[in-house]
Amino acid sequence: MPVTPEQQAEIDALRANPRPTLRAVSDGMEAHLYTINPVLDHGFVRVIDYMGDDAAICQAARVSYGKGTKSVQNDEGLIRYLMRHWHSTPFEMCELKLHVKLPVFVARQWIRHRTANVNEYSARYSILDREFYIPSADQLAAQSSINNQGRGEALTGAEAERVLDILKSDAARCYDHYQDMISDDGQQGLARELARMNLPANIYTQWYWKVDLHNLLHFLRLRADAHAQYEIRVYADEICKLVADWVPFAYKAFEDYRMGGETLSAAALDCVRRMLKGEEVTQETSGMSAREWRELQEVLG
Amino acid sequence: MPVTPEQQAEIDALRANPRPTLRAVSDGMEAHLYTINPVLDHGFVRVIDYMGDDAAICQAARVSYGKGTKSVQNDEGLIRYLMRHWHSTPFEMCELKLHVKLPVFVARQWIRHRTANVNEYSARYSILDREFYIPSADQLAAQSSINNQGRGEALTGAEAERVLDILKSDAARCYDHYQDMISDDGQQGLARELARMNLPANIYTQWYWKVDLHNLLHFLRLRADAHAQYEIRVYADEICKLVADWVPFAYKAFEDYRMGGETLSAAALDCVRRMLKGEEVTQETSGMSAREWRELQEVLG
Amino acid sequence: MPVTPEQQAEIDALRANPRPTLRAVSDGMEAHLYTINPVLDHGFVRVIDYMGDDAAICQAARVSYGKGTKSVQNDEGLIRYLMRHWHSTPFEMCELKLHVKLPVFVARQWIRHRTANVNEYSARYSILDREFYIPSADQLAAQSSINNQGRGEALTGAEAERVLDILKSDAARCYDHYQDMISDDGQQGLARELARMNLPANIYTQWYWKVDLHNLLHFLRLRADAHAQYEIRVYADEICKLVADWVPFAYKAFEDYRMGGETLSAAALDCVRRMLKGEEVTQETSGMSAREWRELQEVLG
Amino acid sequence: MPVTPEQQAEIDALRANPRPTLRAVSDGMEAHLYTINPVLDHGFVRVIDYMGDDAAICQAARVSYGKGTKSVQNDEGLIRYLMRHWHSTPFEMCELKLHVKLPVFVARQWIRHRTANVNEYSARYSILDREFYIPSADQLAAQSSINNQGRGEALTGAEAERVLDILKSDAARCYDHYQDMISDDGQQGLARELARMNLPANIYTQWYWKVDLHNLLHFLRLRADAHAQYEIRVYADEICKLVADWVPFAYKAFEDYRMGGETLSAAALDCVRRMLKGEEVTQETSGMSAREWRELQEVLG
Repeated sequence: MPVTPEQQAEIDALRANPRPTLRAVSDGMEAHLYTINPVLDHGFVRVIDYMGDDAAICQAARVSYGKGTKSVQNDEGLIRYLMRHWHSTPFEMCELKLHVKLPVFVARQWIRHRTANVNEYSARYSILDREFYIPSADQLAAQSSINNQGRGEALTGAEAERVLDILKSDAARCYDHYQDMISDDGQQGLARELARMNLPANIYTQWYWKVDLHNLLHFLRLRADAHAQYEIRVYADEICKLVADWVPFAYKAFEDYRMGGETLSAAALDCVRRMLKGEEVTQETSGMSAREWRELQEVLG
Repeated sequence: MPVTPEQQAEIDALRANPRPTLRAVSDGMEAHLYTINPVLDHGFVRVIDYMGDDAAICQAARVSYGKGTKSVQNDEGLIRYLMRHWHSTPFEMCELKLHVKLPVFVARQWIRHRTANVNEYSARYSILDREFYIPSADQLAAQSSINNQGRGEALTGAEAERVLDILKSDAARCYDHYQDMISDDGQQGLARELARMNLPANIYTQWYWKVDLHNLLHFLRLRADAHAQYEIRVYADEICKLVADWVPFAYKAFEDYRMGGETLSAAALDCVRRMLKGEEVTQETSGMSAREWRELQEVLG
Repeated sequence: MPVTPEQQAEIDALRANPRPTLRAVSDGMEAHLYTINPVLDHGFVRVIDYMGDDAAICQAARVSYGKGTKSVQNDEGLIRYLMRHWHSTPFEMCELKLHVKLPVFVARQWIRHRTANVNEYSARYSILDREFYIPSADQLAAQSSINNQGRGEALTGAEAERVLDILKSDAARCYDHYQDMISDDGQQGLARELARMNLPANIYTQWYWKVDLHNLLHFLRLRADAHAQYEIRVYADEICKLVADWVPFAYKAFEDYRMGGETLSAAALDCVRRMLKGEEVTQETSGMSAREWRELQEVLG
Repeated sequence: MPVTPEQQAEIDALRANPRPTLRAVSDGMEAHLYTINPVLDHGFVRVIDYMGDDAAICQAARVSYGKGTKSVQNDEGLIRYLMRHWHSTPFEMCELKLHVKLPVFVARQWIRHRTANVNEYSARYSILDREFYIPSADQLAAQSSINNQGRGEALTGAEAERVLDILKSDAARCYDHYQDMISDDGQQGLARELARMNLPANIYTQWYWKVDLHNLLHFLRLRADAHAQYEIRVYADEICKLVADWVPFAYKAFEDYRMGGETLSAAALDCVRRMLKGEEVTQETSGMSAREWRELQEVLG
C-alpha cells in the first residue's frame, strides 16, 4: 500500500477546501490534484500543482491580453499547427508539479532530463523507508538475446524463484544492516550520509518534480516509448493519462504528431517515393543498411 | 496610455469570474492578476499566472504529502534558513508568468537571462505598434565620466531639447517609412520580416515571460541593483512589489540576505577582522587594490 | 569589407604559430581557425576554438579510456546509429566557439536558442560601428501573399529603389544622430546606454557564441531550413560547411537523418501504408486536413 | 588500483603523440591530459579535453579579433574585475571535459548540477565491475549530534569493525548475486537492466562530464566547501588542483572572491558597521537570531 492513513488524511485535507482563483483552471486536472496514482509495487505519481490549460498555450502564442483564440475550435487548430511545426515555446507556458515515488534505479534514468526542477527526499538528512521494488512475475525478464539494452521473455520455474528470492533477501538484509548501522542504541551510530551507501538500487525514493509542458512531452515521447525500460515506462504511461485530462487538445496533437509519428531519413523517403511510383525496391537497391531497411519495413507495416 | 479600451475589456473579463481550485492560492497575487502595472512611458508588467506560495516552498523542501511545515511561523523560519544557505531547488518550485511590454533595447538585456520561457510578439508575422520609449527629462542623462557603463547628471537646456527632438523625430520618421514600405496600397509591399529592420531600438515589443522563483530572484538581484540600467531597473522594481505580495516570507528573506547583503572577499574579510581587533588598516596595509579598497569603504559605510 | 588591416593582422598572428597539444585535433577545422567567412554585406562567421572530433563522440558514448572505437569505420557506424536513434549526449561532448558579426534583427532570432554561451559586444559600454545591413536586390522581397511569416518575389523598379533609399538614408541619419548625441565636443554628451536606442535593427553587432554539437545541429536544422528567414539562413549555411569539415561523419549523419528527413504523423503514416497497398487515397479519405494533406503531397514528391 | 595495464596503455598511447594546433593551449593542463588522479579507494578524475585558457576569458569579454588584452598583467586585472563583479559569461567561454569514476551515491549528488553534459557508463547495456567504496578508518564517521546533515567523530573499536564488515560483506554478496542472476550458464539469465537493482549505492560508476568554467566554479564552490559530504569534496578538491594549473588567474580570483569570501546579510552588515564605530553589539541588540549571530561570530573570527 503506497500511502499511510496519516498521508491519506493530509491528502484529504488538501482536497477538502476549494478556494476561488482568477487563474486558468483545468477541471480535468482539478479532479486529479493530490490523489495517489499507484505505479509498480510501492510507487506513485500525484499532481501537486499545475499552471495553464489548452487556452493558455494559445494565449501565449498570440501574446494576447485576454484568453487564447476567439473560439475553442480555433484553439485546437492553433495547437495542432504549433505541434506539427515544432513550435516549442507556447507549450513551455504550461507547467506541472508532481510528487513521485520511484525506485532509485528509475530515478537515475529520470534525472537525466535536465530541464526540470527537482527536490528529492534526502537520505543524507533523513532515514529512508523499508520499501523495495520487486518485479512481478511477468516482468522478471531474461536478457534479450538480440539487444544488449533490452529484455526477452519472462523467466520461469526455479530460475524465477531464485531471482525473486535473491532480490527480496538481499534488500531485506541490506536494510536491516542499514538500520543496525545508524542505530544509536548502545553505540554511536554511523552517519546517515554514509549508511545509505549500503542500500540497493531498488529502494524507493521520492521527489517533487516540476517541468513545463514542452519538456514533459519530450520526456513522455522517450519514456512512454516501447524501447524504454518497463519500470520507467509505467510512470510515463500514468503521466500521459494525467496530461490527457489536463490539456486535451495538446495531448491529442502530441499523440498524432509525436507518439504515433515516425521520422524517415532522406534515404527512407527516397525509397517510399520510388515504391509509390511502382518501383520494386529491395534492401540492395535501397541504399540503406540491412538494419535501417528492417526498421523501415517495420514502420511501413 | 498603455492599454486600449478593448484590452481593458479583455482584462476585466478575465477578472470577472473567479473559479474554484484546489491548488495553492496566494491572495496577495490574486489581487494583481491581469491588471496593468505601468512602467516607463508605454510599458507595463502584468501577472498572467502563478504557481505556488510560501507554503509550497516548504512543502517541496520537505517532499511532503500535505502542506509545508506545521505552522506559518515554521514556514518563515525554514524559508529564511533555505535562503541563507543558498538552497535553490525549493524556490524553483514556484513559478510566475508575466506579460511584459518593453523597449527592444531593454528586451535585449532581459533575454540574456536564459533560464526562463519566452513568447515574443513576432514582427516577422505581425505589424508593430507606433510606440517608442522617449526618456523623461530627469532620465535624459549624460555619459558618466568615471564609468564607461553608466550615466551622470541629466542633460539640460538646449542639449536636452536637441536630444529629445532627435529621438522623437527619428522614431517617427523610421516608423512612417516602415508603414510606407509594408503598405500594399498601389505597390507590392516589402516583407514584414525585412521592413522591421528599419525600426530603432526604442520601439516597444511585448512578450510572455515565465520563470521560476529562484531564477526570478536572481534576475531581480541583478536588475533591481543600483548598477543596472535605469530602464530595466524600473521593471525589476515593479516585479519586486508583485513578488512581495505573492510570497512575502521568501521576498523578505531575499531582501535581507541578497538585496541588502554584500559578499566580502577573503582580503576584505581579513581587513574587517583586523579592524575589529582595533588595528588601523589602510589601503597600503590592506593587501587590496585602490579600487577594491574604495568598494570596501562603501560597504562599511 | 568585413575586416580591417589591423584585424587581419591579429588573425594572421593567431594563425602563425601552431603549438603542440595532446588533445583531439580536427585537421579540417584547424584550416578554418580564426579566418573570416563573410556573410551578408558586412557580417561574418569565424571559428575561435573547438573541442573534440568524430572519434570524441564515440569515445564519450563508450565512456572509454582511450580513443573511440577500434576503427574509423566503426566510428562512422556508431555515429550513424546514435544519430538515427536520437542519442543526444555523445554529440554534446563536442563544442564549438564562434565569433559572429550579424545584424541586430538576426541576433534577436538567434539568441532564442538558449542552450549556448554568449558574450555580446556591449553598446552600453562601447560605441557601435557605422555598419548596416542593406539587402541585395534579389533579397529585397515582397510580403508573401500566402504566408504571414514569409516572403514572395523580389521587389522591382521604383518600389525597390524607394525601399533601398529609405533603408540607407534612415540608417545613415540615425547613425549621424547617434554620433551627435554621444559627442562630448562642446556639450555633455548623452550616455551611450541611452543613445543606442536611436539605432535601427539592421545595425551590425558582434558576439562570441559557444555551443555543443548537439545543440548546434538543432540550431542548424531550424535555421538552415527553407522556412527560416534568409538573413539567418545564410549564417546557418556557412556554419554547416564548417561543421562538415570539423566532424564529417556526424555531419553526414545529420544530413541523412535530420536535414533530409521528414517526420510523418500517425495519420500520414496510415495514408502511406494504404497507398503502398495500392489503395487510392484522397484528402477526403485521408483523415487529414487540407493543409496537412498538401504538406504530405510535398513530402512524397 | 584504479587502472588496468590495458587502460594505462590506452592512456600512454594518447599521450605519446602531440599534434600541432592553432587553438589556445594551456601548458599547465597539457601536463594533466589523460592521466589518472586517484580519488577515494577506486575512483579517479582525469582530463579528457579542455577549451580555452586565461587569455580566452579576456578575449571573449572584449569580443576581440585577436588575443585577450594587450598584456598578461592586464589579463589578470580584467579577470579579477569580472569575478568580483559577478560577470559570468566570459568564464563560460572555457570548457572542461573529465572522465570520472565515482561511487553511485556520490554520482547522485553530482548530477544535480544540471548545467553540464554527461555520458554515463550504462548498467542497462553493460556489466558493472566489482568495485565498491569502503570508507577508510578515519572517514567511518558517526552521525553528527548537532546537524542532521553531517558527521561527527570517527567510529572506533568494535562498532567500527562491525560497520566495515557489514559494508564489505553486503557489497560482496550483492555483487555475487548480481553475477549469478545475469549468468546465462545453464539458465536464461536475468536482464541486465533488472539485475543492476540489486547493487548497493557504494558501487562505482563512470562518466564523461563536460562543463563550462563558470558552472564548474559554481560546482566547486558548493562541493569543495567544508559542509559538503567528504566523499564528493575529495573529487572537488582534486578538480580544484587541475583548474589552478589550467587557468591560474581565474582560479586565484575564484579563491579570493568566492571560496575565501563570505556573504553578509543586511543585518550582519549593520552589526559590523556598528561594531566598527565602537558599539558593543550583542545577539540581543543585533536583530539576528541566535543561529545567525553564531554564524556571524564564526565569520568574524
